[in-house]
Amino acid sequence: MHAMPTLVIGNKLYSSWSMRPWLLMRQLGIAFDEILIPLDRPDTKARVLEHSPAGKVPILIDSDVTVWETLAIMEYVGDAYDAQVWPVDLKARAMARSVAAEMHAGFQGLRSTCPMNLGKKYARRDRGDAVAKDVARFSDIVRQARERFGQGGPFLFGEFSAADAMYAPLVTRLDTYSIALDTTTQAYVDAVLALPAFQEWRNAALTEAWIVDADEVDEEPIEVYRQAALRQGPGTHES
Amino acid sequence: MHAMPTLVIGNKLYSSWSMRPWLLMRQLGIAFDEILIPLDRPDTKARVLEHSPAGKVPILIDSDVTVWETLAIMEYVGDAYDAQVWPVDLKARAMARSVAAEMHAGFQGLRSTCPMNLGKKYARRDRGDAVAKDVARFSDIVRQARERFGQGGPFLFGEFSAADAMYAPLVTRLDTYSIALDTTTQAYVDAVLALPAFQEWRNAALTEAWIVDADEVDEEPIEVYRQAALRQGPGTHES
Repeated sequence: MHAMPTLVIGNKLYSSWSMRPWLLMRQLGIAFDEILIPLDRPDTKARVLEHSPAGKVPILIDSDVTVWETLAIMEYVGDAYDAQVWPVDLKARAMARSVAAEMHAGFQGLRSTCPMNLGKKYARRDRGDAVAKDVARFSDIVRQARERFGQGGPFLFGEFSAADAMYAPLVTRLDTYSIALDTTTQAYVDAVLALPAFQEWRNAALTEAWIVDADEVDEEPIEVYRQAALRQGPGTHES
Repeated sequence: MHAMPTLVIGNKLYSSWSMRPWLLMRQLGIAFDEILIPLDRPDTKARVLEHSPAGKVPILIDSDVTVWETLAIMEYVGDAYDAQVWPVDLKARAMARSVAAEMHAGFQGLRSTCPMNLGKKYARRDRGDAVAKDVARFSDIVRQARERFGQGGPFLFGEFSAADAMYAPLVTRLDTYSIALDTTTQAYVDAVLALPAFQEWRNAALTEAWIVDADEVDEEPIEVYRQAALRQGPGTHES
């Protein structure tokens, strides 16, 4: 038995890294407390450093154990809670960890051009070669994983796993920026967006009022989902 | 029992990512075949893609399982060979995976300014704030890991683990660029450079003749360790 762990995260509307372990733990049914530190504010760095010397969210604190870095938190969850974080089959697990690590240090085109922003939707348009290349690679991953290991459910390796949690923020970008997808990839995107844990996260995100300018692209949205920030106007960093 | 796996790597002189799983498997006593694909040549991309759709080394091929991305290969080694890849203690293991993942996507200052190059040594000089910040963070990691978990040996968590393999290429940069270190960090650097597996890797690297221009800084070395490349002159891509 464990005392309840605490997950330290950033804004739910913008913090793609925070979303990953949160979704995984919620979807696996692991109870945890949450500390939310709004990003991009004068005291953000100091508040994060109170919890971890690496100075970045997410951070998992479990009694006297502190774990930082998303992949390490995911492995810890599997280790410490005996939870089914990765697929059971050794081959599927090897591919799941490969694509999770590929996400960890890759997909820079999509990440820089299309920041995660759960509060808006933008029209479809050409977003450049780096984005197109990342979307093509992601579609390859979805197709290969689904073909080889997707029999038991709608996720990459059938049942939901840490690999899906790793790609969930990328999935939201494909939706937010109305990116054209093949049928298999679109079906996978729809399955992730329909996850109860994701819907809970997004609903909470839409109640936030903070604006992070760096994650707001200079473009008119075709949909605006949250109201609180609009009432305050862009540029404010207070809730 | 396993048939012998194959590790696909790049040049030993320059390929920091390739060094990591190679060191780990060698140091753990896991036998493997090796395929070396020289980087930065016209056929490099095509040759790597023959082994993995992600198109990057290192790649581990174990019968019908293909694993790419260094962290995934390390987890696979622990999984499939029942090898002691991470520290036994749960707390130490959590920190080891945290600092390994931190290396995976971080330390960009050191990585871009001081490319891994086992063939030369450069004089000590100021290499800018980004490098200084990365060195400071690395020294923090060494100090904290050694203080908390370093009792059983000279490595980050006492005995050699995947965390040491992850930081080994960074360690060689500190040596290659003559970077000033505190006593604890220097002792750790010396322990890694003295590893039999590292010495085997470096000796093989020094027989290579390929030059990768992107990894050669524009500066006179104070030591030149390999002879083959010099005889051919810089700029050649043939062995």
